[in-house]
Amino acid sequence: MLLGPGDDAAVLKAPDGRVVVSTDLLIEGRHFRRDWSSGYDIGRKAAAQNLSDIVAMGADPTALVVGLGLPADVGADWVDALTDGFRDECDLVGATVAGGDIARSETVVLGVTALGDLGGRTPVTRSGARPGDVVAVAGRLGHAAAGLALFGAGVTGGSPDLVSLLEAHRRPRPPYPCGPGAALLGATAMLDVSDGLLQDLGHVADASGVAVELDAAALPVPEALSAAARELGADPLEWVLTGGDDHALAATFPPEVRLPAEWTRVGAVTRGRGVRVDGQTWTTGGWDHFRA
Amino acid sequence: MLLGPGDDAAVLKAPDGRVVVSTDLLIEGRHFRRDWSSGYDIGRKAAAQNLSDIVAMGADPTALVVGLGLPADVGADWVDALTDGFRDECDLVGATVAGGDIARSETVVLGVTALGDLGGRTPVTRSGARPGDVVAVAGRLGHAAAGLALFGAGVTGGSPDLVSLLEAHRRPRPPYPCGPGAALLGATAMLDVSDGLLQDLGHVADASGVAVELDAAALPVPEALSAAARELGADPLEWVLTGGDDHALAATFPPEVRLPAEWTRVGAVTRGRGVRVDGQTWTTGGWDHFRA
Repeated sequence: MLLGPGDDAAVLKAPDGRVVVSTDLLIEGRHFRRDWSSGYDIGRKAAAQNLSDIVAMGADPTALVVGLGLPADVGADWVDALTDGFRDECDLVGATVAGGDIARSETVVLGVTALGDLGGRTPVTRSGARPGDVVAVAGRLGHAAAGLALFGAGVTGGSPDLVSLLEAHRRPRPPYPCGPGAALLGATAMLDVSDGLLQDLGHVADASGVAVELDAAALPVPEALSAAARELGADPLEWVLTGGDDHALAATFPPEVRLPAEWTRVGAVTRGRGVRVDGQTWTTGGWDHFRA
Repeated sequence: MLLGPGDDAAVLKAPDGRVVVSTDLLIEGRHFRRDWSSGYDIGRKAAAQNLSDIVAMGADPTALVVGLGLPADVGADWVDALTDGFRDECDLVGATVAGGDIARSETVVLGVTALGDLGGRTPVTRSGARPGDVVAVAGRLGHAAAGLALFGAGVTGGSPDLVSLLEAHRRPRPPYPCGPGAALLGATAMLDVSDGLLQDLGHVADASGVAVELDAAALPVPEALSAAARELGADPLEWVLTGGDDHALAATFPPEVRLPAEWTRVGAVTRGRGVRVDGQTWTTGGWDHFRA
Protein backbone atom coordinates (compact mmCIF):
# COMPACT_ATOMS: atom_id res chain seq x y z
CA MET A 1 0.00 0.00 0.00
CA LEU A 2 1.50 3.30 -1.09
CA LEU A 3 -1.12 5.58 0.48
CA GLY A 4 -3.61 4.31 3.03
CA PRO A 5 -6.86 5.55 4.55
CA GLY A 6 -7.46 9.24 5.23
CA ASP A 7 -7.34 10.86 1.81
CA ASP A 8 -9.88 10.98 -1.03
CA ALA A 9 -8.57 7.63 -2.22
CA ALA A 10 -5.90 5.05 -1.44
CA VAL A 11 -2.98 4.30 -3.74
CA LEU A 12 -1.92 0.67 -4.09
CA LYS A 13 0.83 -1.09 -5.96
CA ALA A 14 -0.26 -2.86 -9.14
CA PRO A 15 3.09 -4.27 -10.27
CA ASP A 16 1.51 -6.55 -12.88
CA GLY A 17 0.10 -3.56 -14.79
CA ARG A 18 -3.35 -5.11 -14.45
CA VAL A 19 -5.63 -5.07 -11.43
CA VAL A 20 -8.26 -7.64 -10.49
CA VAL A 21 -11.34 -6.25 -8.74
CA SER A 22 -14.49 -7.74 -7.25
CA THR A 23 -17.24 -6.29 -5.09
CA ASP A 24 -19.95 -7.72 -2.85
CA LEU A 25 -22.75 -6.17 -0.87
CA LEU A 26 -23.63 -7.94 2.38
CA ILE A 27 -26.86 -7.09 4.16
CA GLU A 28 -27.74 -7.95 7.73
CA GLY A 29 -30.54 -10.50 7.97
CA ARG A 30 -29.83 -11.76 4.49
CA HIS A 31 -26.11 -12.53 4.48
CA PHE A 32 -25.40 -12.60 8.20
CA ARG A 33 -27.15 -12.34 11.55
CA ARG A 34 -25.66 -10.53 14.52
CA ASP A 35 -27.22 -13.07 16.90
CA TRP A 36 -25.53 -16.02 15.13
CA SER A 37 -22.15 -14.42 14.37
CA SER A 38 -19.94 -11.98 16.25
CA GLY A 39 -18.70 -8.76 14.67
CA TYR A 40 -15.31 -10.41 14.40
CA ASP A 41 -16.72 -13.43 12.56
CA ILE A 42 -18.75 -11.22 10.23
CA GLY A 43 -15.58 -9.29 9.37
CA ARG A 44 -13.67 -12.51 8.73
CA LYS A 45 -16.46 -13.89 6.54
CA ALA A 46 -17.03 -10.70 4.55
CA ALA A 47 -13.32 -10.43 3.87
CA ALA A 48 -13.01 -14.13 3.00
CA GLN A 49 -15.86 -13.95 0.53
CA ASN A 50 -14.18 -11.18 -1.41
CA LEU A 51 -10.61 -12.38 -1.14
CA SER A 52 -11.82 -15.72 -2.47
CA ASP A 53 -13.16 -14.06 -5.63
CA ILE A 54 -9.69 -12.68 -6.27
CA VAL A 55 -7.81 -15.97 -5.82
CA ALA A 56 -10.45 -17.66 -8.01
CA MET A 57 -9.03 -15.60 -10.89
CA GLY A 58 -5.54 -16.89 -10.11
CA ALA A 59 -4.52 -13.56 -8.55
CA ASP A 60 -2.99 -12.59 -5.22
CA PRO A 61 -5.27 -10.32 -3.15
CA THR A 62 -3.65 -7.00 -2.32
CA ALA A 63 -6.29 -4.90 -0.56
CA LEU A 64 -9.87 -4.45 0.54
CA VAL A 65 -11.88 -1.26 0.75
CA VAL A 66 -15.02 -1.38 2.88
CA GLY A 67 -18.18 0.70 2.96
CA LEU A 68 -19.87 0.22 6.31
CA GLY A 69 -23.49 1.10 7.02
CA LEU A 70 -24.26 1.16 10.74
CA PRO A 71 -27.49 1.46 12.71
CA ALA A 72 -27.41 3.67 15.79
CA ASP A 73 -27.57 0.65 18.12
CA VAL A 74 -24.20 -0.75 17.03
CA GLY A 75 -21.46 0.08 19.50
CA ALA A 76 -17.80 0.88 18.98
CA ASP A 77 -16.82 -2.53 20.39
CA TRP A 78 -18.73 -4.31 17.65
CA VAL A 79 -17.13 -2.13 14.96
CA ASP A 80 -13.68 -2.72 16.45
CA ALA A 81 -14.28 -6.48 16.37
CA LEU A 82 -15.50 -6.28 12.77
CA THR A 83 -12.38 -4.33 11.83
CA ASP A 84 -10.19 -6.89 13.59
CA GLY A 85 -11.93 -9.64 11.62
CA PHE A 86 -11.24 -7.88 8.33
CA ARG A 87 -7.62 -7.35 9.29
CA ASP A 88 -6.98 -10.92 10.45
CA GLU A 89 -8.52 -12.46 7.34
CA CYS A 90 -6.49 -10.08 5.14
CA ASP A 91 -3.35 -11.06 7.05
CA LEU A 92 -3.80 -14.64 5.82
CA VAL A 93 -3.11 -13.53 2.26
CA GLY A 94 -0.89 -10.50 2.83
CA ALA A 95 -3.61 -8.00 1.90
CA THR A 96 -4.49 -4.78 3.73
CA VAL A 97 -7.62 -2.77 4.42
CA ALA A 98 -6.79 0.31 2.38
CA GLY A 99 -9.76 2.51 3.08
CA GLY A 100 -13.45 2.78 3.64
CA ASP A 101 -16.52 4.81 4.24
CA ILE A 102 -19.02 4.84 7.10
CA ALA A 103 -22.68 5.81 6.78
CA ARG A 104 -25.75 5.59 8.98
CA SER A 105 -28.22 2.89 7.92
CA GLU A 106 -31.20 0.94 9.28
CA THR A 107 -29.37 -2.40 9.36
CA VAL A 108 -25.70 -3.30 9.09
CA VAL A 109 -24.56 -3.10 5.47
CA LEU A 110 -21.12 -4.04 4.20
CA GLY A 111 -19.96 -3.02 0.75
CA VAL A 112 -16.67 -4.84 0.28
CA THR A 113 -14.36 -4.49 -2.70
CA ALA A 114 -11.24 -6.61 -3.11
CA LEU A 115 -8.29 -5.93 -5.39
CA GLY A 116 -5.60 -8.29 -6.55
CA ASP A 117 -2.49 -8.64 -8.63
CA LEU A 118 -1.96 -11.36 -11.24
CA GLY A 119 1.82 -11.47 -10.90
CA GLY A 120 2.19 -12.04 -14.62
CA ARG A 121 -0.26 -14.95 -14.71
CA THR A 122 -3.14 -15.25 -17.17
CA PRO A 123 -6.47 -14.76 -15.35
CA VAL A 124 -8.40 -18.02 -15.04
CA THR A 125 -11.97 -17.37 -16.15
CA ARG A 126 -15.07 -19.56 -16.26
CA SER A 127 -14.97 -20.04 -19.98
CA GLY A 128 -11.86 -22.10 -20.70
CA ALA A 129 -12.99 -25.64 -19.77
CA ARG A 130 -12.50 -28.17 -22.60
CA PRO A 131 -13.85 -31.71 -23.10
CA GLY A 132 -11.35 -34.13 -21.59
CA ASP A 133 -10.38 -31.78 -18.73
CA VAL A 134 -10.64 -33.09 -15.20
CA VAL A 135 -12.81 -31.28 -12.65
CA ALA A 136 -11.32 -30.78 -9.20
CA VAL A 137 -12.18 -28.99 -5.97
CA ALA A 138 -10.06 -27.49 -3.21
CA GLY A 139 -11.37 -26.52 0.20
CA ARG A 140 -14.49 -27.58 2.04
CA LEU A 141 -17.90 -28.24 0.50
CA GLY A 142 -21.20 -28.30 2.36
CA HIS A 143 -19.78 -27.45 5.79
CA ALA A 144 -21.23 -23.94 5.97
CA ALA A 145 -24.56 -25.18 4.62
CA ALA A 146 -24.70 -27.90 7.27
CA GLY A 147 -23.84 -25.31 9.91
CA LEU A 148 -26.59 -23.02 8.67
CA ALA A 149 -29.06 -25.94 8.76
CA LEU A 150 -28.01 -26.66 12.35
CA PHE A 151 -28.49 -23.01 13.36
CA GLY A 152 -31.85 -23.01 11.58
CA ALA A 153 -32.90 -26.11 13.60
CA GLY A 154 -31.88 -24.41 16.83
CA VAL A 155 -28.72 -26.51 17.28
CA THR A 156 -26.07 -24.12 18.56
CA GLY A 157 -23.63 -26.64 20.10
CA GLY A 158 -23.00 -30.35 20.67
CA SER A 159 -20.32 -32.77 19.54
CA PRO A 160 -17.04 -31.46 18.12
CA ASP A 161 -18.32 -32.45 14.66
CA LEU A 162 -21.41 -30.29 14.99
CA VAL A 163 -19.47 -27.42 16.53
CA SER A 164 -17.03 -27.54 13.61
CA LEU A 165 -19.93 -27.07 11.18
CA LEU A 166 -21.47 -24.20 13.17
CA GLU A 167 -18.01 -22.65 13.09
CA ALA A 168 -17.77 -23.28 9.33
CA HIS A 169 -20.96 -21.26 8.88
CA ARG A 170 -19.55 -18.41 10.95
CA ARG A 171 -16.15 -18.39 9.35
CA PRO A 172 -15.23 -19.89 6.00
CA ARG A 173 -11.70 -21.11 5.34
CA PRO A 174 -11.09 -20.57 1.64
CA PRO A 175 -8.08 -22.46 0.24
CA TYR A 176 -6.39 -19.19 -0.75
CA PRO A 177 -3.03 -20.48 -2.05
CA CYS A 178 -4.80 -22.94 -4.35
CA GLY A 179 -6.08 -20.12 -6.60
CA PRO A 180 -2.76 -18.72 -7.81
CA GLY A 181 -1.45 -22.29 -7.62
CA ALA A 182 -4.10 -23.51 -10.05
CA ALA A 183 -3.22 -20.73 -12.47
CA LEU A 184 0.41 -21.88 -12.38
CA LEU A 185 -0.67 -25.52 -12.90
CA GLY A 186 -2.51 -24.52 -16.07
CA ALA A 187 -6.14 -24.57 -14.88
CA THR A 188 -8.42 -23.95 -17.87
CA ALA A 189 -11.35 -22.61 -15.79
CA MET A 190 -11.87 -21.78 -12.14
CA LEU A 191 -14.36 -20.20 -9.80
CA ASP A 192 -15.18 -19.66 -6.19
CA VAL A 193 -17.96 -21.99 -5.03
CA SER A 194 -20.31 -19.48 -3.44
CA ASP A 195 -23.73 -20.64 -4.69
CA GLY A 196 -23.12 -24.39 -4.46
CA LEU A 197 -20.99 -26.75 -6.51
CA LEU A 198 -23.73 -27.71 -8.98
CA GLN A 199 -24.83 -24.15 -9.64
CA ASP A 200 -21.31 -22.81 -9.90
CA LEU A 201 -20.09 -25.61 -12.17
CA GLY A 202 -23.20 -24.83 -14.21
CA HIS A 203 -21.68 -21.38 -14.76
CA VAL A 204 -18.47 -23.00 -15.98
CA ALA A 205 -20.40 -25.35 -18.26
CA ASP A 206 -22.45 -22.49 -19.71
CA ALA A 207 -19.51 -20.11 -20.14
CA SER A 208 -17.28 -22.82 -21.65
CA GLY A 209 -19.94 -24.50 -23.81
CA VAL A 210 -19.30 -27.91 -22.27
CA ALA A 211 -20.90 -30.42 -19.89
CA VAL A 212 -19.61 -31.37 -16.46
CA GLU A 213 -19.98 -34.96 -15.21
CA LEU A 214 -19.48 -35.40 -11.46
CA ASP A 215 -18.71 -38.68 -9.73
CA ALA A 216 -20.70 -38.73 -6.46
CA ALA A 217 -18.36 -41.26 -4.86
CA ALA A 218 -15.44 -38.90 -5.39
CA LEU A 219 -17.07 -36.00 -3.56
CA PRO A 220 -15.68 -35.54 -0.07
CA VAL A 221 -18.32 -36.28 2.62
CA PRO A 222 -16.46 -36.17 5.94
CA GLU A 223 -17.92 -37.72 9.09
CA ALA A 224 -18.92 -34.30 10.44
CA LEU A 225 -21.38 -33.87 7.58
CA SER A 226 -22.75 -37.38 8.08
CA ALA A 227 -23.19 -36.71 11.79
CA ALA A 228 -25.10 -33.48 11.12
CA ALA A 229 -27.21 -35.21 8.49
CA ARG A 230 -28.18 -37.90 11.01
CA GLU A 231 -29.02 -35.19 13.55
CA LEU A 232 -31.30 -33.39 11.10
CA GLY A 233 -32.52 -36.27 8.93
CA ALA A 234 -30.84 -34.69 5.92
CA ASP A 235 -28.74 -35.90 2.98
CA PRO A 236 -25.12 -34.79 3.38
CA LEU A 237 -24.52 -35.06 -0.37
CA GLU A 238 -27.09 -32.33 -0.92
CA TRP A 239 -25.07 -29.97 1.27
CA VAL A 240 -21.94 -30.86 -0.69
CA LEU A 241 -23.62 -30.33 -4.05
CA THR A 242 -25.74 -27.27 -3.32
CA GLY A 243 -24.24 -25.53 -0.29
CA GLY A 244 -22.40 -22.26 -0.78
CA ASP A 245 -20.49 -20.11 1.67
CA ASP A 246 -17.50 -22.41 2.20
CA HIS A 247 -15.75 -20.63 -0.68
CA ALA A 248 -14.10 -23.75 -1.99
CA LEU A 249 -12.49 -23.45 -5.41
CA ALA A 250 -13.65 -25.54 -8.35
CA ALA A 251 -11.41 -25.75 -11.39
CA THR A 252 -10.83 -27.68 -14.57
CA PHE A 253 -7.38 -28.89 -15.60
CA PRO A 254 -5.97 -30.58 -18.67
CA PRO A 255 -5.89 -34.34 -17.99
CA GLU A 256 -2.11 -34.53 -17.97
CA VAL A 257 -1.77 -32.10 -15.02
CA ARG A 258 -0.60 -33.80 -11.80
CA LEU A 259 -2.80 -32.30 -9.12
CA PRO A 260 -1.29 -31.52 -5.72
CA ALA A 261 -2.90 -33.05 -2.63
CA GLU A 262 -5.03 -29.93 -1.96
CA TRP A 263 -7.10 -30.71 -5.06
CA THR A 264 -9.60 -33.57 -5.21
CA ARG A 265 -10.62 -34.86 -8.62
CA VAL A 266 -14.42 -35.05 -8.65
CA GLY A 267 -15.38 -35.40 -12.30
CA ALA A 268 -14.69 -34.66 -15.93
CA VAL A 269 -15.57 -32.18 -18.64
CA THR A 270 -17.38 -33.65 -21.66
CA ARG A 271 -19.09 -32.40 -24.78
CA GLY A 272 -22.65 -31.25 -24.20
CA ARG A 273 -24.20 -28.95 -21.67
CA GLY A 274 -25.21 -28.82 -18.04
CA VAL A 275 -23.98 -30.62 -14.96
CA ARG A 276 -24.76 -34.23 -14.10
CA VAL A 277 -24.00 -36.36 -11.04
CA ASP A 278 -23.38 -40.04 -11.85
CA GLY A 279 -24.99 -39.38 -15.22
CA GLN A 280 -28.19 -37.96 -13.72
CA THR A 281 -29.43 -34.41 -13.49
CA TRP A 282 -29.64 -33.55 -9.80
CA THR A 283 -33.24 -32.70 -8.95
CA THR A 284 -33.40 -32.49 -5.16
CA GLY A 285 -33.16 -29.21 -3.34
CA GLY A 286 -35.22 -26.97 -5.54
CA TRP A 287 -32.54 -25.67 -7.88
CA ASP A 288 -34.83 -25.00 -10.83
CA HIS A 289 -32.09 -24.42 -13.33
CA PHE A 290 -30.86 -27.98 -12.80
CA ARG A 291 -34.23 -29.52 -13.51
CA ALA A 292 -34.19 -28.97 -17.27
CA MET B 1 -11.05 -3.18 -19.37
CA LEU B 2 -9.45 -6.56 -20.00
CA LEU B 3 -12.22 -8.73 -18.52
CA GLY B 4 -15.64 -7.33 -17.70
CA PRO B 5 -18.63 -8.45 -15.65
CA GLY B 6 -19.66 -12.10 -15.44
CA ASP B 7 -16.71 -13.77 -13.76
CA ASP B 8 -15.57 -13.88 -10.13
CA ALA B 9 -13.77 -10.58 -10.69
CA ALA B 10 -12.99 -8.08 -13.42
CA VAL B 11 -9.51 -7.45 -14.77
CA LEU B 12 -8.52 -3.86 -15.56
CA LYS B 13 -5.49 -2.22 -17.01
CA ALA B 14 -3.24 -0.47 -14.49
CA PRO B 15 -0.52 0.81 -16.78
CA ASP B 16 0.97 3.09 -14.15
CA GLY B 17 1.81 0.12 -11.91
CA ARG B 18 -0.20 1.79 -9.15
CA VAL B 19 -3.95 1.86 -8.73
CA VAL B 20 -6.03 4.52 -6.99
CA VAL B 21 -9.15 3.25 -5.21
CA SER B 22 -11.98 4.88 -3.30
CA THR B 23 -15.28 3.54 -1.99
CA ASP B 24 -18.55 5.09 -0.83
CA LEU B 25 -21.72 3.65 0.60
CA LEU B 26 -24.92 5.50 -0.34
CA ILE B 27 -28.10 4.78 1.55
CA GLU B 28 -31.61 5.71 0.46
CA GLY B 29 -33.17 8.37 2.68
CA ARG B 30 -29.77 9.53 3.84
CA HIS B 31 -27.85 10.20 0.63
CA PHE B 32 -30.70 10.32 -1.88
CA ARG B 33 -34.47 10.16 -2.10
CA ARG B 34 -36.30 8.36 -4.85
CA ASP B 35 -39.07 10.97 -4.78
CA TRP B 36 -36.60 13.83 -5.38
CA SER B 37 -34.29 12.11 -7.86
CA SER B 38 -34.85 9.65 -10.68
CA GLY B 39 -32.96 6.38 -10.88
CA TYR B 40 -30.94 7.91 -13.68
CA ASP B 41 -29.99 10.95 -11.59
CA ILE B 42 -29.08 8.75 -8.61
CA GLY B 43 -26.79 6.72 -10.86
CA ARG B 44 -25.18 9.87 -12.24
CA LYS B 45 -24.67 11.30 -8.77
CA ALA B 46 -23.35 8.09 -7.19
CA ALA B 47 -20.88 7.70 -10.02
CA ALA B 48 -19.86 11.38 -9.91
CA GLN B 49 -19.20 11.26 -6.19
CA ASN B 50 -16.75 8.38 -6.59
CA LEU B 51 -15.12 9.49 -9.84
CA SER B 52 -14.51 12.83 -8.16
CA ASP B 53 -12.52 11.16 -5.38
CA ILE B 54 -10.23 9.66 -8.01
CA VAL B 55 -9.57 12.90 -9.91
CA ALA B 56 -8.98 14.64 -6.57
CA MET B 57 -5.84 12.49 -6.26
CA GLY B 58 -4.70 13.69 -9.69
CA ALA B 59 -5.61 10.36 -11.30
CA ASP B 60 -7.73 9.37 -14.30
CA PRO B 61 -10.74 7.23 -13.36
CA THR B 62 -10.71 3.87 -15.12
CA ALA B 63 -13.63 1.89 -13.69
CA LEU B 64 -16.42 1.57 -11.17
CA VAL B 65 -17.72 -1.55 -9.50
CA VAL B 66 -21.14 -1.30 -7.89
CA GLY B 67 -22.88 -3.30 -5.19
CA LEU B 68 -26.61 -2.70 -5.45
CA GLY B 69 -29.09 -3.46 -2.68
CA LEU B 70 -32.67 -3.42 -3.91
CA PRO B 71 -36.04 -3.60 -2.12
CA ALA B 72 -38.70 -5.77 -3.73
CA ASP B 73 -40.70 -2.70 -4.84
CA VAL B 74 -38.01 -1.42 -7.21
CA GLY B 75 -38.77 -2.31 -10.79
CA ALA B 76 -36.48 -3.23 -13.66
CA ASP B 77 -37.09 0.17 -15.30
CA TRP B 78 -35.65 1.97 -12.30
CA VAL B 79 -32.60 -0.29 -12.25
CA ASP B 80 -32.10 0.21 -15.98
CA ALA B 81 -32.24 3.98 -15.50
CA LEU B 82 -29.76 3.77 -12.62
CA THR B 83 -27.42 1.70 -14.77
CA ASP B 84 -27.73 4.21 -17.61
CA GLY B 85 -26.84 6.98 -15.16
CA PHE B 86 -23.72 5.16 -14.03
CA ARG B 87 -22.71 4.52 -17.64
CA ASP B 88 -23.29 8.09 -18.84
CA GLU B 89 -21.34 9.63 -15.96
CA CYS B 90 -18.49 7.16 -16.53
CA ASP B 91 -18.50 8.06 -20.23
CA LEU B 92 -17.58 11.65 -19.29
CA VAL B 93 -14.19 10.45 -18.04
CA GLY B 94 -13.62 7.37 -20.19
CA ALA B 95 -14.29 4.94 -17.34
CA THR B 96 -16.41 1.79 -17.45
CA VAL B 97 -18.65 -0.12 -15.05
CA ALA B 98 -16.57 -3.26 -14.69
CA GLY B 99 -18.77 -5.35 -12.45
CA GLY B 100 -21.12 -5.50 -9.57
CA ASP B 101 -23.25 -7.44 -7.19
CA ILE B 102 -26.99 -7.34 -6.49
CA ALA B 103 -28.61 -8.19 -3.17
CA ARG B 104 -32.06 -7.85 -1.65
CA SER B 105 -32.33 -5.08 0.97
CA GLU B 106 -34.96 -3.03 2.80
CA THR B 107 -33.99 0.25 1.13
CA VAL B 108 -31.88 1.04 -1.91
CA VAL B 109 -28.19 0.75 -1.04
CA LEU B 110 -25.32 1.57 -3.37
CA GLY B 111 -21.78 0.45 -2.59
CA VAL B 112 -19.66 2.17 -5.20
CA THR B 113 -15.93 1.69 -5.66
CA ALA B 114 -13.93 3.71 -8.17
CA LEU B 115 -10.49 2.90 -9.54
CA GLY B 116 -8.05 5.15 -11.31
CA ASP B 117 -4.65 5.37 -12.91
CA LEU B 118 -2.06 8.03 -12.09
CA GLY B 119 -0.42 8.02 -15.52
CA GLY B 120 3.00 8.52 -13.95
CA ARG B 121 1.91 11.51 -11.85
CA THR B 122 2.55 11.87 -8.13
CA PRO B 123 -0.72 11.51 -6.19
CA VAL B 124 -1.88 14.82 -4.75
CA THR B 125 -2.78 14.26 -1.10
CA ARG B 126 -4.18 16.55 1.58
CA SER B 127 -0.91 16.96 3.39
CA GLY B 128 1.34 18.92 1.05
CA ALA B 129 0.07 22.51 1.44
CA ARG B 130 2.81 24.99 2.43
CA PRO B 131 2.67 28.55 3.78
CA GLY B 132 2.71 30.89 0.80
CA ASP B 133 0.70 28.59 -1.46
CA VAL B 134 -2.45 29.94 -3.05
CA VAL B 135 -5.81 28.25 -2.44
CA ALA B 136 -8.02 27.76 -5.47
CA VAL B 137 -11.27 26.04 -6.35
CA ALA B 138 -12.62 24.52 -9.55
CA GLY B 139 -16.25 23.65 -10.14
CA ARG B 140 -19.39 24.81 -8.42
CA LEU B 141 -19.78 25.58 -4.71
CA GLY B 142 -23.07 25.77 -2.83
CA HIS B 143 -25.31 24.93 -5.78
CA ALA B 144 -26.33 21.48 -4.57
CA ALA B 145 -26.82 22.79 -1.02
CA ALA B 146 -29.08 25.56 -2.31
CA GLY B 147 -31.00 22.98 -4.35
CA LEU B 148 -31.40 20.77 -1.31
CA ALA B 149 -32.65 23.77 0.70
CA LEU B 150 -35.18 24.52 -2.04
CA PHE B 151 -36.39 20.90 -2.07
CA GLY B 152 -36.60 20.97 1.70
CA ALA B 153 -38.76 24.13 1.55
CA GLY B 154 -41.07 22.45 -0.97
CA VAL B 155 -39.77 24.47 -3.94
CA THR B 156 -39.60 22.01 -6.83
CA GLY B 157 -39.63 24.46 -9.73
CA GLY B 158 -39.66 28.14 -10.64
CA SER B 159 -37.25 30.47 -12.42
CA PRO B 160 -34.41 29.03 -14.51
CA ASP B 161 -32.06 30.02 -11.66
CA LEU B 162 -33.97 27.97 -9.12
CA VAL B 163 -34.39 25.05 -11.51
CA SER B 164 -30.64 25.06 -12.13
CA LEU B 165 -30.06 24.65 -8.39
CA LEU B 166 -32.62 21.85 -8.03
CA GLU B 167 -30.84 20.18 -10.93
CA ALA B 168 -27.48 20.75 -9.23
CA HIS B 169 -28.76 18.82 -6.22
CA ARG B 170 -29.90 15.94 -8.42
CA ARG B 171 -26.80 15.79 -10.54
CA PRO B 172 -23.40 17.23 -9.65
CA ARG B 173 -21.00 18.30 -12.38
CA PRO B 174 -17.52 17.71 -11.00
CA PRO B 175 -14.74 19.48 -12.91
CA TYR B 176 -13.12 16.15 -13.80
CA PRO B 177 -10.25 17.30 -16.03
CA CYS B 178 -9.09 19.79 -13.40
CA GLY B 179 -7.89 16.99 -11.09
CA PRO B 180 -5.20 15.44 -13.30
CA GLY B 181 -4.60 18.97 -14.61
CA ALA B 182 -3.83 20.25 -11.11
CA ALA B 183 -1.37 17.40 -10.58
CA LEU B 184 0.45 18.45 -13.75
CA LEU B 185 0.43 22.10 -12.63
CA GLY B 186 2.18 21.10 -9.42
CA ALA B 187 -0.68 21.30 -6.91
CA THR B 188 0.69 20.71 -3.41
CA ALA B 189 -2.60 19.48 -1.92
CA MET B 190 -6.03 18.74 -3.30
CA LEU B 191 -9.36 17.27 -2.34
CA ASP B 192 -12.89 16.80 -3.46
CA VAL B 193 -15.25 19.26 -1.70
CA SER B 194 -17.90 16.85 -0.45
CA ASP B 195 -18.52 18.10 3.09
CA GLY B 196 -18.30 21.83 2.37
CA LEU B 197 -15.38 24.07 1.55
CA LEU B 198 -14.62 25.09 5.15
CA GLN B 199 -14.73 21.57 6.51
CA ASP B 200 -12.74 20.11 3.65
CA LEU B 201 -10.10 22.84 3.69
CA GLY B 202 -9.94 22.12 7.42
CA HIS B 203 -8.80 18.62 6.47
CA VAL B 204 -6.06 20.11 4.29
CA ALA B 205 -5.01 22.48 7.08
CA ASP B 206 -4.90 19.66 9.63
CA ALA B 207 -3.09 17.20 7.38
CA SER B 208 -0.60 19.80 6.18
CA GLY B 209 -0.03 21.52 9.53
CA VAL B 210 -0.96 24.95 8.10
CA ALA B 211 -3.72 27.55 8.23
CA VAL B 212 -5.99 28.51 5.36
CA GLU B 213 -7.15 32.14 4.96
CA LEU B 214 -10.11 32.60 2.61
CA ASP B 215 -11.11 35.88 0.99
CA ALA B 216 -14.92 36.05 1.04
CA ALA B 217 -15.02 38.53 -1.85
CA ALA B 218 -13.15 36.04 -4.04
CA LEU B 219 -15.64 33.24 -3.51
CA PRO B 220 -17.95 32.79 -6.48
CA VAL B 221 -21.57 33.65 -5.61
CA PRO B 222 -23.49 33.54 -8.89
CA GLU B 223 -26.90 35.17 -9.28
CA ALA B 224 -28.69 31.80 -9.03
CA LEU B 225 -27.48 31.43 -5.45
CA SER B 226 -28.50 34.99 -4.60
CA ALA B 227 -31.94 34.39 -6.10
CA ALA B 228 -32.44 31.21 -4.06
CA ALA B 229 -31.18 32.98 -0.93
CA ARG B 230 -33.77 35.74 -1.43
CA GLU B 231 -36.46 33.08 -1.96
CA LEU B 232 -35.57 31.31 1.29
CA GLY B 233 -34.24 34.18 3.40
CA ALA B 234 -30.84 32.51 3.52
CA ASP B 235 -27.21 33.62 3.19
CA PRO B 236 -25.75 32.43 -0.11
CA LEU B 237 -22.22 32.60 1.28
CA GLU B 238 -23.12 29.96 3.83
CA TRP B 239 -24.04 27.54 1.03
CA VAL B 240 -20.74 28.32 -0.69
CA LEU B 241 -18.72 27.78 2.49
CA THR B 242 -20.53 24.81 3.99
CA GLY B 243 -22.43 23.06 1.19
CA GLY B 244 -21.16 19.74 -0.08
CA ASP B 245 -22.36 17.55 -2.92
CA ASP B 246 -21.22 19.75 -5.80
CA HIS B 247 -17.91 17.89 -5.82
CA ALA B 248 -15.84 20.92 -6.62
CA LEU B 249 -12.10 20.54 -6.26
CA ALA B 250 -10.09 22.60 -3.80
CA ALA B 251 -6.34 22.70 -4.17
CA THR B 252 -3.24 24.57 -3.10
CA PHE B 253 -0.58 25.64 -5.55
CA PRO B 254 2.85 27.24 -5.25
CA PRO B 255 2.40 31.00 -5.74
CA GLU B 256 4.31 31.06 -9.03
CA VAL B 257 1.90 28.68 -10.77
CA ARG B 258 -0.22 30.37 -13.45
CA LEU B 259 -3.70 29.00 -12.87
CA PRO B 260 -5.88 28.22 -15.88
CA ALA B 261 -9.32 29.85 -16.10
CA GLU B 262 -11.06 26.81 -14.56
CA TRP B 263 -9.44 27.61 -11.22
CA THR B 264 -10.50 30.54 -9.05
CA ARG B 265 -8.04 31.81 -6.47
CA VAL B 266 -9.94 32.14 -3.17
CA GLY B 267 -7.28 32.44 -0.50
CA ALA B 268 -3.83 31.63 0.76
CA VAL B 269 -2.01 29.16 2.97
CA THR B 270 -0.31 30.63 6.02
CA ARG B 271 1.46 29.40 9.11
CA GLY B 272 -0.88 28.36 11.92
CA ARG B 273 -3.91 26.14 12.01
CA GLY B 274 -7.55 26.11 11.02
CA VAL B 275 -9.53 27.93 8.35
CA ARG B 276 -10.54 31.60 8.53
CA VAL B 277 -12.73 33.74 6.27
CA ASP B 278 -11.59 37.38 6.06
CA GLY B 279 -9.53 36.71 9.17
CA GLN B 280 -12.50 35.42 11.18
CA THR B 281 -13.43 31.93 12.23
CA TRP B 282 -16.73 31.13 10.52
CA THR B 283 -19.34 30.47 13.21
CA THR B 284 -22.68 30.29 11.39
CA GLY B 285 -24.19 27.02 10.34
CA GLY B 286 -23.39 24.86 13.30
CA TRP B 287 -20.03 23.49 12.22
CA ASP B 288 -18.65 22.88 15.70
CA HIS B 289 -15.13 22.13 14.61
CA PHE B 290 -14.80 25.62 13.13
CA ARG B 291 -15.84 27.34 16.32
CA ALA B 292 -12.65 26.70 18.24
